[in-house]
Amino acid sequence: MAERHDAVDIIKTKRGGGTLADDQIDWVVDAYTRGVVADEQMSSLAMAILLRGMTREEISRWTAAMIATGERLDFSSLSRRTADKHSTGGVGDKITLPLAPLVAACGVAVPQLSGRGLGHTGGTLDKLEAIPGWRAALSNEEMMRQLEDVGAVICAAGSGLAPADKKLYALRDVTGTVEAIPLIASSIMSKKIAEGTGALVLDVKVGTGAFMKTEADARELARTMVDLGTDAGVVTTALLTDMSTPLGRACGNGLEVAESVEVLAGGGPADVVELTLALAREMLAGAGVTDVDPADALADGRAMDAWRRMIAAQGGDVDAPMPDAPHVEEVRAEADGVITRMDAMGVGVAAWRLGAGRARKEDPVQASAGVYLHRTLGEEVKAGDVIMTLHTETPERMPRGLAALADACDGAGTVEVTPGGSVERRLVIDRIA
Amino acid sequence: MAERHDAVDIIKTKRGGGTLADDQIDWVVDAYTRGVVADEQMSSLAMAILLRGMTREEISRWTAAMIATGERLDFSSLSRRTADKHSTGGVGDKITLPLAPLVAACGVAVPQLSGRGLGHTGGTLDKLEAIPGWRAALSNEEMMRQLEDVGAVICAAGSGLAPADKKLYALRDVTGTVEAIPLIASSIMSKKIAEGTGALVLDVKVGTGAFMKTEADARELARTMVDLGTDAGVVTTALLTDMSTPLGRACGNGLEVAESVEVLAGGGPADVVELTLALAREMLAGAGVTDVDPADALADGRAMDAWRRMIAAQGGDVDAPMPDAPHVEEVRAEADGVITRMDAMGVGVAAWRLGAGRARKEDPVQASAGVYLHRTLGEEVKAGDVIMTLHTETPERMPRGLAALADACDGAGTVEVTPGGSVERRLVIDRIA
Repeated sequence: MAERHDAVDIIKTKRGGGTLADDQIDWVVDAYTRGVVADEQMSSLAMAILLRGMTREEISRWTAAMIATGERLDFSSLSRRTADKHSTGGVGDKITLPLAPLVAACGVAVPQLSGRGLGHTGGTLDKLEAIPGWRAALSNEEMMRQLEDVGAVICAAGSGLAPADKKLYALRDVTGTVEAIPLIASSIMSKKIAEGTGALVLDVKVGTGAFMKTEADARELARTMVDLGTDAGVVTTALLTDMSTPLGRACGNGLEVAESVEVLAGGGPADVVELTLALAREMLAGAGVTDVDPADALADGRAMDAWRRMIAAQGGDVDAPMPDAPHVEEVRAEADGVITRMDAMGVGVAAWRLGAGRARKEDPVQASAGVYLHRTLGEEVKAGDVIMTLHTETPERMPRGLAALADACDGAGTVEVTPGGSVERRLVIDRIA
Repeated sequence: MAERHDAVDIIKTKRGGGTLADDQIDWVVDAYTRGVVADEQMSSLAMAILLRGMTREEISRWTAAMIATGERLDFSSLSRRTADKHSTGGVGDKITLPLAPLVAACGVAVPQLSGRGLGHTGGTLDKLEAIPGWRAALSNEEMMRQLEDVGAVICAAGSGLAPADKKLYALRDVTGTVEAIPLIASSIMSKKIAEGTGALVLDVKVGTGAFMKTEADARELARTMVDLGTDAGVVTTALLTDMSTPLGRACGNGLEVAESVEVLAGGGPADVVELTLALAREMLAGAGVTDVDPADALADGRAMDAWRRMIAAQGGDVDAPMPDAPHVEEVRAEADGVITRMDAMGVGVAAWRLGAGRARKEDPVQASAGVYLHRTLGEEVKAGDVIMTLHTETPERMPRGLAALADACDGAGTVEVTPGGSVERRLVIDRIA
């Protein structure tokens, strides 16, 4: 069959700063998925999009075209409304783990299709796989049943949702075209919209450990995604949140599961609790539930109950302790003072080097590797106090983890201790609706 | 062996408007030729170059890196100096045919490695192949011998010169990245510098029938190429010349050979003679020959002698008449007046549709197809006079040729006849050295 467009015309239009027509977008996304538009054509188009931008209408259409290459889930038969969350990725960002059962405990179903980690940011599935027996792969039927029975599911996104995105993301990764806001936004939102959630809250991270280093970029990404969700009929809001410092004290798969359980038990680090509740409120409000305070569900154990059922439903041994790493090193304070910098990127790269993360998507990760912050931003230390411990299953990784800590912040190091110092952290920077 | 650079870093540098280091350029061009840098990586880099530009130093280095992927010819053993010409391509541009023997007749050797036509612009090799027996493919040894014996050779560029360029050009063609001046300039100049000519004149066309539609773009391309040649030690100048109207009266392979022979016989259209002489003077001056007037060599038959020996040396039957097309249609004037427009693109596309050109490089071309302008720009016509004839070997192409004439200039048509009109044409717009 003759193709109804020519890739070169489309590339030239965008190259010149023009606006692509709906039909051009529909065709190029579909034809790329079919292999009619070649990788080298899509990569020059992606670069043109990165440098020339896209209008709101173009991004909405591009997202719809990506969704149209695959299946859509439909939760309309559920007895409860649905809400989901997406984080743009950070260090120590285990929020999905307490959040999904918490929101379920408040009466809204959470269908969390998650991914694995890459580079210095962890992946939710990697974290949950530290739990013995837990499995990420569910069929659509299993997912639906668990949503109805338990109210929350965290599982691997099937390959059926927006296959164009999977192909395009792999291409962008090797062609220097990842950092295009229209393409980032449509990549994330195509999967979330295809997933069929009724409400969505976006946790858009800003700071050294985030994909978006500046507030302006994060704000633009958040705005673009909220618009995309809204245009597609999903009630969407975004929180801009700080990622210059790791969330909580635990960075690493099993370490983060343990910290999440602390939060579900009513304890845990204040910042993790604060962000979990803030996101839970957004999700509940998006689903139309305004008469329930999620803080109560944390305090009275309902969230913990939902967690236990959610993990057990996917084969996880909910009472198994997290594995201890066989090799642990301590990093101690050299002077008295207040920690005025705990750099998220430094900690994230260290945890990755220790074995918690992966450089390529086929690499394995270690359940017990990571970094635990005994002291973190704004806390006082005395010389000789243990600031953090490094954990790994492979001792030859230890020097690489230590080097990553030292190399951070252009060699200034991950941690700064200032005598008599003080520091203020605004965790939730803004809300975008 | 570990690669010493990463393609994504290089792409991101150019994407951000940065300057590539010499070593990055050397590596990326070489690694692309070796297949280590993938097509999809080079295409996003090409788009970034197109939109972000390159410094003079980057373009020189890129050109040198392309040359380094292949062989270089060496004419230093010749008893004469060498000079070459390159045209950016036009309609009716047969100038190489009279020019090469003319310059040879004046004592400077001309090693013309030429290409074939694509789209509406003709190719020198296609034109010469209208001569029975003539062959384009010569070994390096045959080329050297002919240069020594005859002083001029027009032949196909071997695959040994700048193979990176061949691969890159094919990629740019399908990825919307042809129109990047740094890449156009380095593509042309890598082959001309590798070819080893001592002097070079560039005929940079401007106008509807040219690749560069505006004088500003043509000027930038000319400046870039002259700088590249100069930086590589080749005496390089450029003429900006008009390509809003076809050169001469003949457009089509055999038709243009016949017109070239007229010029070599001391006749022919004034514009073809003017441009041939202007370019010959540049080539001679570039080779240091300033005491010879090429007009004399045209007038006294020495250029014709060199032509006959040049064609015969490559097997061509120099006395064979050019073939007549079996199907000819006339286009007549509808009113009295002066021809105030004879659009180069209209005529070029018509000749192509009639069979003189090709859409894909593997397509054949017809020797006798084309358009002959019995009247052209600035000439008077009376209603009913034949303005042009269309020639083809395949009658079903005739309507397509006529349609191309009518469609030109956004539907206003190729030819405009204005009662009492007048028009001035500046053939050589500027000289850039």
